[in-house]
Amino acid sequence: MAGFFLVLEGPEGAGKSTLARALTARMRTAGVEPVVVREPGGTPAAEALRHELLHDDRAWTPAAELLYIAAARADLVAKVIRPALRDGRVVLSDRFDLSTRAYQIGGRGLPALEVEWVNQAATGGLVPDLTLVLDVPPEVGQARQVASGKRQDRLDREAEAFHQRVAAVYRDATGPGLVHLDATGTAEALADAAWRALRRARPDLFGE
Amino acid sequence: MAGFFLVLEGPEGAGKSTLARALTARMRTAGVEPVVVREPGGTPAAEALRHELLHDDRAWTPAAELLYIAAARADLVAKVIRPALRDGRVVLSDRFDLSTRAYQIGGRGLPALEVEWVNQAATGGLVPDLTLVLDVPPEVGQARQVASGKRQDRLDREAEAFHQRVAAVYRDATGPGLVHLDATGTAEALADAAWRALRRARPDLFGE
Repeated sequence: MAGFFLVLEGPEGAGKSTLARALTARMRTAGVEPVVVREPGGTPAAEALRHELLHDDRAWTPAAELLYIAAARADLVAKVIRPALRDGRVVLSDRFDLSTRAYQIGGRGLPALEVEWVNQAATGGLVPDLTLVLDVPPEVGQARQVASGKRQDRLDREAEAFHQRVAAVYRDATGPGLVHLDATGTAEALADAAWRALRRARPDLFGE
Repeated sequence: MAGFFLVLEGPEGAGKSTLARALTARMRTAGVEPVVVREPGGTPAAEALRHELLHDDRAWTPAAELLYIAAARADLVAKVIRPALRDGRVVLSDRFDLSTRAYQIGGRGLPALEVEWVNQAATGGLVPDLTLVLDVPPEVGQARQVASGKRQDRLDREAEAFHQRVAAVYRDATGPGLVHLDATGTAEALADAAWRALRRARPDLFGE
């Protein structure tokens, strides 16, 4: 059976982690054990890069930040995602290449052509079968984050205008296999909508 | 006192490692304790990337290889080289951005504009004060490597034409602070020539 590559995208506080857990539980009920990953991370090299990105308070340039994210993605794709898909597994990734468009092109203002070249270098041309974009106004997402008491990392602490630019990229994103979901309601409603999208994409895997 | 950033460049078997040891000894005699690094590597994240680059036999694309090298360089620059230079130290690096031109643009044939953008992202604009290019015909360099009994890694095992293209970039390299040295003679003669170049560049540091 062909593998299936599912990506969850959206701004901070959209509910990606909660949705990932809900979808994992529903997949298991449907008899599918997914390979769950989050970006950046998932391999020794990628976790080392993630640690620097989130916890080193050096004077980061946007372009250097991009390099760390891209190298971590390249490692995750080569060592985890591609092998799992080759084995016919379902892979669920919390963030992928659309995050780079949103944060590095939208948020940081890096040049789109160069970032897309780097993105392509990182994915090696691997395209998700389904990308679920969790739509939530940035102020709602940030309020949720504060309410959750999650410790803010370096990227969470960016200015309001940065998060607005990120949100605009997510809002306007289109493409094959890309589905927008309203994420302003309950976690349960979001999981229901996501599950419907999964069943439409792969009725053979997720039941009908 | 201002720091000094010295880079050794050249194809495999040119004698970079031997020269690095000889220059370190001479610097110590002159009362200078250098910070010695080699690329890729030198930080936890960069060493993790180096391990993948040299020992993972995955289906590497040239662009993915570039990302690993560049991210490793970015980490080394941020965590080791820039702080050392800020402290007024002498930094001696075995390879830097010219290696990326030689191997990724020359050897692999990646597009020069994109690679230069990535190079700039990795270095953050840091330019060596002196780059010593060790000139040696590729066949001499490779014969030396075989004679040394050094275990060949993934990059050493590239085809002859690859090494010829790398050598051509080194041979034609020019720029501010870039000095070519004949590396076909003895290690002692090479160290003498390198030391003269160092004294010319920074008589205050390396004596006159």
